[in-house]
Amino acid sequence: MPVPAPNLYPAFNTIRLSHVCLNVSDLAASRAFYVDMFGLQVTDEDDTYIYLRALEERGHHSVILQRSDQPGTVEVMGFKTFDEGDLDRADAYFRAKGRPTEWAQRPFQGRTLLTSDNMGIPLEFYHQMDRLAPIHQEYGRYHGVRPLRIDHFNCFSTDVDDSVAFYSDFGFRVTEYTEDEESKRLWAAWLHRKGGVHDMAFTNGRGPRMHHVAFWVANPLHIIDLLDVMATTGYVGNIERGPGRHGISNAFFLYILDPDGHRIEIYSSDYQTVDSDHEPIKWDLKDPQRQTLWGAPAPRSWFEHGTEFVGVPVNDPDLDASPIIAP
Amino acid sequence: MPVPAPNLYPAFNTIRLSHVCLNVSDLAASRAFYVDMFGLQVTDEDDTYIYLRALEERGHHSVILQRSDQPGTVEVMGFKTFDEGDLDRADAYFRAKGRPTEWAQRPFQGRTLLTSDNMGIPLEFYHQMDRLAPIHQEYGRYHGVRPLRIDHFNCFSTDVDDSVAFYSDFGFRVTEYTEDEESKRLWAAWLHRKGGVHDMAFTNGRGPRMHHVAFWVANPLHIIDLLDVMATTGYVGNIERGPGRHGISNAFFLYILDPDGHRIEIYSSDYQTVDSDHEPIKWDLKDPQRQTLWGAPAPRSWFEHGTEFVGVPVNDPDLDASPIIAP
Amino acid sequence: MPVPAPNLYPAFNTIRLSHVCLNVSDLAASRAFYVDMFGLQVTDEDDTYIYLRALEERGHHSVILQRSDQPGTVEVMGFKTFDEGDLDRADAYFRAKGRPTEWAQRPFQGRTLLTSDNMGIPLEFYHQMDRLAPIHQEYGRYHGVRPLRIDHFNCFSTDVDDSVAFYSDFGFRVTEYTEDEESKRLWAAWLHRKGGVHDMAFTNGRGPRMHHVAFWVANPLHIIDLLDVMATTGYVGNIERGPGRHGISNAFFLYILDPDGHRIEIYSSDYQTVDSDHEPIKWDLKDPQRQTLWGAPAPRSWFEHGTEFVGVPVNDPDLDASPIIAP
Amino acid sequence: MPVPAPNLYPAFNTIRLSHVCLNVSDLAASRAFYVDMFGLQVTDEDDTYIYLRALEERGHHSVILQRSDQPGTVEVMGFKTFDEGDLDRADAYFRAKGRPTEWAQRPFQGRTLLTSDNMGIPLEFYHQMDRLAPIHQEYGRYHGVRPLRIDHFNCFSTDVDDSVAFYSDFGFRVTEYTEDEESKRLWAAWLHRKGGVHDMAFTNGRGPRMHHVAFWVANPLHIIDLLDVMATTGYVGNIERGPGRHGISNAFFLYILDPDGHRIEIYSSDYQTVDSDHEPIKWDLKDPQRQTLWGAPAPRSWFEHGTEFVGVPVNDPDLDASPIIAP
Ligand SMILES: [Ca+2]
Ligand SMILES: [Fe+2]
Ligand SMILES: [Fe+2]
Ligand SMILES: [Fe+2]
Ligand SMILES: [Fe+2]
Repeated sequence: MPVPAPNLYPAFNTIRLSHVCLNVSDLAASRAFYVDMFGLQVTDEDDTYIYLRALEERGHHSVILQRSDQPGTVEVMGFKTFDEGDLDRADAYFRAKGRPTEWAQRPFQGRTLLTSDNMGIPLEFYHQMDRLAPIHQEYGRYHGVRPLRIDHFNCFSTDVDDSVAFYSDFGFRVTEYTEDEESKRLWAAWLHRKGGVHDMAFTNGRGPRMHHVAFWVANPLHIIDLLDVMATTGYVGNIERGPGRHGISNAFFLYILDPDGHRIEIYSSDYQTVDSDHEPIKWDLKDPQRQTLWGAPAPRSWFEHGTEFVGVPVNDPDLDASPIIAP
Repeated sequence: MPVPAPNLYPAFNTIRLSHVCLNVSDLAASRAFYVDMFGLQVTDEDDTYIYLRALEERGHHSVILQRSDQPGTVEVMGFKTFDEGDLDRADAYFRAKGRPTEWAQRPFQGRTLLTSDNMGIPLEFYHQMDRLAPIHQEYGRYHGVRPLRIDHFNCFSTDVDDSVAFYSDFGFRVTEYTEDEESKRLWAAWLHRKGGVHDMAFTNGRGPRMHHVAFWVANPLHIIDLLDVMATTGYVGNIERGPGRHGISNAFFLYILDPDGHRIEIYSSDYQTVDSDHEPIKWDLKDPQRQTLWGAPAPRSWFEHGTEFVGVPVNDPDLDASPIIAP
Repeated sequence: MPVPAPNLYPAFNTIRLSHVCLNVSDLAASRAFYVDMFGLQVTDEDDTYIYLRALEERGHHSVILQRSDQPGTVEVMGFKTFDEGDLDRADAYFRAKGRPTEWAQRPFQGRTLLTSDNMGIPLEFYHQMDRLAPIHQEYGRYHGVRPLRIDHFNCFSTDVDDSVAFYSDFGFRVTEYTEDEESKRLWAAWLHRKGGVHDMAFTNGRGPRMHHVAFWVANPLHIIDLLDVMATTGYVGNIERGPGRHGISNAFFLYILDPDGHRIEIYSSDYQTVDSDHEPIKWDLKDPQRQTLWGAPAPRSWFEHGTEFVGVPVNDPDLDASPIIAP
Repeated sequence: MPVPAPNLYPAFNTIRLSHVCLNVSDLAASRAFYVDMFGLQVTDEDDTYIYLRALEERGHHSVILQRSDQPGTVEVMGFKTFDEGDLDRADAYFRAKGRPTEWAQRPFQGRTLLTSDNMGIPLEFYHQMDRLAPIHQEYGRYHGVRPLRIDHFNCFSTDVDDSVAFYSDFGFRVTEYTEDEESKRLWAAWLHRKGGVHDMAFTNGRGPRMHHVAFWVANPLHIIDLLDVMATTGYVGNIERGPGRHGISNAFFLYILDPDGHRIEIYSSDYQTVDSDHEPIKWDLKDPQRQTLWGAPAPRSWFEHGTEFVGVPVNDPDLDASPIIAP
């Protein structure tokens, strides 16, 4: 299947990805990881939740850590709409597609629409979230990897063609994709709303599962600083892959694992994609520079490990093509 | 006057700034500056024009150098619309505002609407421009400051309140602004369409004139590299201000002057502003960290020098407030 | 006078500059500056002294902060010799030159020889200092400007030719120098022992006074980080000059002032000078790229302000040439 | 065997490593690699030789490429002495050790002493080499990885204890070493003369062979730039290992292979070791952070591949311990 043409006039206007709620076993251990080591800022916390934002974010939270008896699962992925009316249009849209919808009250958020995508990934849409005072120029707060903002989600899909069709229909636009030359099916795809390479990406694999959530940093030296800190403060085993330059997206990257196995990417310098006629870039699954421009293959764990969405059954993918894996 | 609320539902959809046409006296000297030293890529050239793009741009040009008997003037500033229909809606909009409009044929561009803003700045709007193959991963081409994309324009205005009102009305949103505490009038403002701090900014002064056009680079070290190259290849006199961190926008910057006196900014790492409820930040004209977070004032030339728009009369500003100038 | 040829076989072997003792008014304010903001590590402290080292140093201290009723003066500059015998040879050498010598006991140091240079700058030489465990890979400790090691001293001299002759005679080698074209006298000189551009430098001016003490950092981005932190944590007024690239030494630099007016330089990436036949580089006092390769002149304070050596009278310089000063 | 105490008063004074002569099959291919892509500067060339220097070097050459019918072998490793008399003292010293010595005439060098080390590695010592004008501030010349100076050699040794004993005896000082916990024998060692972590290092393996020659760069971003260029200009297969932070030396590194299989390291920011009482750091062969602080093991080729010294027989090592190799 070819990549679908973008729907430039979707039924409702999603601005960007917004936040993720991660289920964790030990809030103190997660706080040490995300706040003390990684550098996110706490905006609220109690016995069950820690709310976090990155340094340039004005919205109340981009990560919610939720103490859970199902740690290592993902509760929900959140998206922000352009206005309140978009929530009603989204409700109608998803119901018309046969997806379940429900209105919820979330702390620090306005009216929130719960639904799920074609594979069952739990999604929530809102327009209004508490706005906080800017802290991006309070440089005394910067530490760890100096995370500036949430950048994107990446999920395992059992059928990437289907996932791409589903998100394209409400306005996500493909920027890059990997095709399996034999079957002509998609092995992976990157889709955006906010004008970068992606807000959401899908990779062929046992799914649906979250592959990773990514944070933007200003330059590669902050990633090197993080590696040095992790390597010498007890987190060397949490470093999974990188650093390197992605072929796809052209960004400089690092992948690490949090204490519950959630994968976090640190990501810097992709490129602008706001043009409505921006053409997607096609990669061949067998191109070794696809994963890492410099040629290094990803480790096996990177293709196999992900974190499930709580309560959502997982299946094997349809497509049985093989990426290049480190020996 | 307070900053106007953004018009979230403008009459037509401008995606971003796109290109500028600069009048120059000597194409060879300009080519040495922009191509050999600065690092832009030539996409077309003849005896009268050199068309340039930055490394991640897919549109045909973001700078046009035009050999002219009025060197040191600006021909036009260009903007890209979301679709072709936006051009017709723009035509109707500007005519209703009493602005002149005209359709033009531009090389490498589709249908192009010429108009001018409230002060007379010549503007052109188009949707379609020739799309070129990506070169952002042809790293052998990168040199000079490694410019990635055009980022914004900045112009002197004789009445910043009026300029802001004019652009806000067709959808530009203010991200930061400087107010004169006494008169409560705007001394400067930054407005965006594409989700960064600005596509267009205005500063109080003799106008209308272009203050500068800015290019985005990946990190501050490329700016340091450029300074080293300029300082030792005959361009030390073309360095005007910086490097430094802006208070406003939080970006790392450098200002240089081209052989005809056009001011170029190199700019890195502002922040994302895609949220429709993103609140503008207010600065006081007397705050010394407004210009440079680190406290260094700008030189007098930075407040006084600009390049005129060809054929557009220039006037003194209404507001007579004084910024902080280096002694 | 021409620059003297290096004495490659000096009477005793000085390895490198080692430490400085600074008199301060308020240890808590100095600690906030040097430890919390700047990033040095405390190795010992009591009511009168704070001992500090930089991140890669194994010797006990490179800065001693001494609470004093003469704050803003310098107590002594320290140098390390190759072996213990060098101390006896130094004692004989300085006495033969007519300089006073005295043996002192210093905490954390072995046998220490006190003397003073031709202008009266108090110097101390030692071979043995307590050695501490390496911390350069304890990356959790790195903050502020991430200072790695003390790099050099710079002093005002009333007669740079005399100062250079004095230090050259016991083995310091000139790497770069500034000559006044009219008088053919030295306006400034940089001399080393440890294989970089300098351990000690002299500048023509009211002296003897300390102009600055410098610390080495790994790259310019750490200097940018420091500027951002200083600018937003109450130290914007302590930023004096920079950042920039030196013409002389080719290093990337920043100058800041501590709470008592002691000037600190942060310095990165000069070059290796271990060759015994390394030729010095000559600069003209009128060359604007001498101070800053990028052309920006230093502010007046940079030429006029320094901190006196406690109890050492200060005189005007012989040479009345004028450097380029920012207007 | 424990690491030997340094000989602080050696029979002659070696200042630093100086240059290497590499045998290559195709001068044009080597020139494309070292000059056009990597960024070294040609100082002389003819049909048989290309002489190269890095950007801050004033000596005529640090690399000699020699067209040879034995490509992929190393001709000789060169060292610079403090003065001419050191050459005579070196001659007497090596003869007393039973090593062959011979005086040779080398282009661009003064009197040159040829000898070989205990394993047969061909060495040459000289004091005088043609001195060239500084180019370190000709920033228009900088490209590729922006190499500043040769930093060190690293060789496979069949008996690292013996190699260390041999070099220690004429003044090389151990800064870091790896011990096999079982046999208490050295698996690797780093030794310096010039005040950094090493001028020469040895690793247990089939030897003698050159493992790599390293060049110093100012910061890690230049290494990232090189990787991007290599990956997109036909050299992706020449990238072998990295980038990463070394545990040993704390430097940021990358290893690449030239067209004849000679391994080149790019190296940035180790630390200063000029103190005569500088203590070596011991590492355990089983410590995974020894090779890469961030935990990534080196590939098998890195332990097995090296380039032979022309005409010197190669043997298996005595010690049969196993480092950690990437699966
Ligand atoms: Ca950087
Ligand atoms: Fe990602
Ligand atoms: Fe700007
Ligand atoms: Fe200095
Ligand atoms: Fe090495």
